[in-house]
Amino acid sequence: MDLWFSEKHTPNVKFSIRVDRQLYSGQSDFQRIDVFESPEFGRILVLDGYLMLTEKDEFIYHEMIVHTPLAVHPHVKNVLVIGAGDGGAVRELTRYPEIGRIDLAEIDGQVIEVCKKFLPQTSCKMDDPRVHIYVEDGLKFVRRHADEYDLIIVDSTDPFGPGEGLFTKEFYGNCYKALKEDGIMVNQHESPFYEQDALAMQRAHKRIIESFPFSRIYQAHIPTYPSGHWLFGFSTKKYHPLKDLDEARWNARGLKCRYYTTTLHRGAFYLPAYVEEMLEDVEEKR
Amino acid sequence: MDLWFSEKHTPNVKFSIRVDRQLYSGQSDFQRIDVFESPEFGRILVLDGYLMLTEKDEFIYHEMIVHTPLAVHPHVKNVLVIGAGDGGAVRELTRYPEIGRIDLAEIDGQVIEVCKKFLPQTSCKMDDPRVHIYVEDGLKFVRRHADEYDLIIVDSTDPFGPGEGLFTKEFYGNCYKALKEDGIMVNQHESPFYEQDALAMQRAHKRIIESFPFSRIYQAHIPTYPSGHWLFGFSTKKYHPLKDLDEARWNARGLKCRYYTTTLHRGAFYLPAYVEEMLEDVEEKR
Repeated sequence: MDLWFSEKHTPNVKFSIRVDRQLYSGQSDFQRIDVFESPEFGRILVLDGYLMLTEKDEFIYHEMIVHTPLAVHPHVKNVLVIGAGDGGAVRELTRYPEIGRIDLAEIDGQVIEVCKKFLPQTSCKMDDPRVHIYVEDGLKFVRRHADEYDLIIVDSTDPFGPGEGLFTKEFYGNCYKALKEDGIMVNQHESPFYEQDALAMQRAHKRIIESFPFSRIYQAHIPTYPSGHWLFGFSTKKYHPLKDLDEARWNARGLKCRYYTTTLHRGAFYLPAYVEEMLEDVEEKR
Repeated sequence: MDLWFSEKHTPNVKFSIRVDRQLYSGQSDFQRIDVFESPEFGRILVLDGYLMLTEKDEFIYHEMIVHTPLAVHPHVKNVLVIGAGDGGAVRELTRYPEIGRIDLAEIDGQVIEVCKKFLPQTSCKMDDPRVHIYVEDGLKFVRRHADEYDLIIVDSTDPFGPGEGLFTKEFYGNCYKALKEDGIMVNQHESPFYEQDALAMQRAHKRIIESFPFSRIYQAHIPTYPSGHWLFGFSTKKYHPLKDLDEARWNARGLKCRYYTTTLHRGAFYLPAYVEEMLEDVEEKR
């Protein structure tokens, strides 16, 4: 069988994964959902034709979006996760016993159900008693909350389709209000390399710094995302992602990771010159 | 015109680039050489079907393989570059006025000629009077030299075909001898992500640490190489890649780079946990 899933990273660049078979294909109220089994990457989740995660490299994304803020903020108890119906961020969060509540706002309940059935590697902790699932638009959910969360993780899809509202000034402003006075927001921040991704990255940064007094970008190597060079935003009211990193405290937890280390944490914030320039371009226009 | 160049990163993963036209195709004594014009990446060089460089992202590879050792070693005068017929490493080296001699040993003279004609962006400094080109096997060239170079840059192709000899214990041992007592060798070190690349990376590390007392790996985001997560080796007799990094001295040069910065330099050595483990596996068996 010669069956390939392809994603166009730009109109002129294509990334293709050989698949054994399609495990699921369905249309929810919001998007088309597909799950494939592949020899190289294990199971892969595809939304509207865009690859969301693979079992082989999802650990990189989920470790980096969760452990980076948790190694900085000294007492995270209440967490809001927006998007992330696959459960990967929740799985990493449940490794922290001091986290008492994880609210998950995912617009598409069908994604949650499909992942529970076909992607147990990521969805394995969705039944943890601390997890409260709200099947609703994260944009609307966050409006109703104020001064409540220590950490908000915005695990959105790309800035078009159902995830579009999660890249707006209104949304980031509401996240700011929903955070406590020392809260942190971390968000998936697109990629700097291909032109359209870089423009989306700059737009997101512009809108975030309109709401947050301090925001820094960090990076990871995610082989199945366009260009493999992926960014996250780290926006805070109080803590600095490097000056307030407490390596000894985090390492004393004994959490075993495959990508994240507190040393790598520092390096993740040391960006290439051209990425720094893109961010400065935005900041100078503030 | 719907014309695509594809490279299989593994038998199950394919990366494809739309091309406008083929500018050159020829067979040298060693390999097939192709140059394409592409809308996303500009001109691209392909050897035996493997993508070697694109005009859009070659700056990342060439800046990282040259400026990283130059920001550590305080007085580089004589440099040997092995491979690198495209001229990209030479271009970056010629930006340092204190470098008096750049010997280039490239096995395939036809690669040099083709790049001079079709890739002026990288080959633009091959006529610098400090550059001495030796069209011969780097493995043989380095055998004849002892205690001569401050820096050796091994800009090899992959560890099969004409580049195979540049991944052997004998070769690394001869590089050690060809270096002065405070010399540095930097080499392209494959990728940690896909299994076969990771095995090649571990083999290279094993052979290098049989010759060099100290060797560390550093990384960069290179979107057009398999997985986008690429490694370099930094092997020394004396200098430490971080403790001997002199940021003030390098920044005083005023060299403008698009990827490399002395801050990024540090982060490039902060590797993901799984890569550290792969290297430790090799080091424990020493």
